Amino acid sequence: MIGIETLVNLLDLGGTFVFAISGALAAVNRRLDIFGILVLAFVAGNFGGITRDLLIGAVPPAALSHERYLLASIMAGLITFFSYSGVKRLRSPVLLFDAVGLSVFAVAGAGKAIEFGLNPVMAALLGMVTGIGGGMMRDLLLMEIPQVLRSDLYALAALAGAAVVVIGHELALPYGVAALAGGLLCFTLRFMAIRYAWRLPVGHFSARERAKAGKDEEEQ
Amino acid sequence: MIGIETLVNLLDLGGTFVFAISGALAAVNRRLDIFGILVLAFVAGNFGGITRDLLIGAVPPAALSHERYLLASIMAGLITFFSYSGVKRLRSPVLLFDAVGLSVFAVAGAGKAIEFGLNPVMAALLGMVTGIGGGMMRDLLLMEIPQVLRSDLYALAALAGAAVVVIGHELALPYGVAALAGGLLCFTLRFMAIRYAWRLPVGHFSARERAKAGKDEEEQ
Amino acid sequence: MIGIETLVNLLDLGGTFVFAISGALAAVNRRLDIFGILVLAFVAGNFGGITRDLLIGAVPPAALSHERYLLASIMAGLITFFSYSGVKRLRSPVLLFDAVGLSVFAVAGAGKAIEFGLNPVMAALLGMVTGIGGGMMRDLLLMEIPQVLRSDLYALAALAGAAVVVIGHELALPYGVAALAGGLLCFTLRFMAIRYAWRLPVGHFSARERAKAGKDEEEQ
Repeated sequence: MIGIETLVNLLDLGGTFVFAISGALAAVNRRLDIFGILVLAFVAGNFGGITRDLLIGAVPPAALSHERYLLASIMAGLITFFSYSGVKRLRSPVLLFDAVGLSVFAVAGAGKAIEFGLNPVMAALLGMVTGIGGGMMRDLLLMEIPQVLRSDLYALAALAGAAVVVIGHELALPYGVAALAGGLLCFTLRFMAIRYAWRLPVGHFSARERAKAGKDEEEQ
Repeated sequence: MIGIETLVNLLDLGGTFVFAISGALAAVNRRLDIFGILVLAFVAGNFGGITRDLLIGAVPPAALSHERYLLASIMAGLITFFSYSGVKRLRSPVLLFDAVGLSVFAVAGAGKAIEFGLNPVMAALLGMVTGIGGGMMRDLLLMEIPQVLRSDLYALAALAGAAVVVIGHELALPYGVAALAGGLLCFTLRFMAIRYAWRLPVGHFSARERAKAGKDEEEQ
Repeated sequence: MIGIETLVNLLDLGGTFVFAISGALAAVNRRLDIFGILVLAFVAGNFGGITRDLLIGAVPPAALSHERYLLASIMAGLITFFSYSGVKRLRSPVLLFDAVGLSVFAVAGAGKAIEFGLNPVMAALLGMVTGIGGGMMRDLLLMEIPQVLRSDLYALAALAGAAVVVIGHELALPYGVAALAGGLLCFTLRFMAIRYAWRLPVGHFSARERAKAGKDEEEQ
């Protein structure tokens, strides 16, 4: 039987791998070469954690001091490179794994931020950053407005999961329990958002205002 | 009567709030959802200070250890979300407040960099970075070439204000005096630049060279 | 006769200068003002080293604690601004110098990462990051997908050079010897890649898959 720490490590590595797949897929779609594909894989899989570690002062970041994250990213990049169609066909499972990865990252990120003495609100936000940072940087490198800024409760699910961990910590619950509850909440929210196409409201203005906004932008 | 430190704190918070408004407005213009609006508000209000703190080794950054900056950003985001037209109508006052925010950030940023032992030239530059970093990241997240790289003496005003603080420090003037002078200089420069549409010169080349430059770019 | 350290410092400064030229040229092509040109020059010349220093915890980064890097960047920016056509005409020599800069940065970056206790694989990668980071950020600020993600063995040459330094360290060779060998390897690879238009393979899919990929992207 495997212990809880082994499980968390496995999930963490699995999250990196799935996020890296998403980066590699995006890179292939944009016709990057094999090096660009590997970079996007690494960035998508690890940038969230690296950002968190820089912000809390945990240098060098875990993604740079343990080689397994690099290996998982490279493997994801190579698999995508050599069997793009196969990976593409796995799209639904990848979405599921991605939700798992998001949950694990959010929960683990919040835990690490608490450990480094951040206050509760910020610890929850850093959990969210851990979860969404990789995807944001992936999109920026490919010159797209980050998807996470526009869709599907992605970030909110991560924030909710991380918040549970923080609240659990405040209530002095064991980390394992809070992490499990937070992870489940994040996964469920994300799963429902995909399944029922839940969306957050967008800022709204009338057509006239919209035209004006466009004009104002040009004037600037 | 309020003391000078309270005043600086209030201005600092006010600067964060006004910058956050600029981020939220840009996000609404691009049809981001409420989460994206809040992220842009936080980034525009705090990214400059976070960058400075990372570069001088002050981790976790102030924007993450004091919750008031987060609250000011969220409030700015919500207000913009719920009354977009109202905020839009305040455009001229917002420009004014933005100039105040820039001045406060530049002056406070230079002061903090000196405190952390940076050399004078770099302290002035970090003051500038504190002032312009939020707006740069806001534009990058929305896939625009940062406005600050093209317009209105924005960065130069921040640099001038920060330089006054540094020079004051070298001359052993009290911080309050230098900060006030620097802030006023920055505000005045920015105000005049808006009022009289002052611009810095752009790099120039003949039409033939320009066509060639375009061609070279494509070749690369 | 000049010592080896002086030589390394000179090359390092020369690398900063040449990279800064590339940033300034790109800024002039995009019609940025003089301030934007100087920013791009500084970023292209120094962002790789700054990223490395943040990741290994060497704050404040060398580019901020020694003024010579700033001076070299400003000089490159001003020269480009005042004699754009002259600099443009030097394009082939600039490409050569750029290859020298890349080699020096990769080798020096790997050496510094080893010094700060990074493991061998990560030290090599950080050498690469030192070499390519400036160019990546230059392209991002100008809203282009970083060239280094698509072309010419640029990053791979840097990685190879950095790897030689790391292997030399593992074999306990003197740093000077390993650095020289690594630098030469990087330069040669890059030179051959330019001369013979070597490219890495890109991810490939059939026309049908490509159309589908495009469609999927829109759906997201």
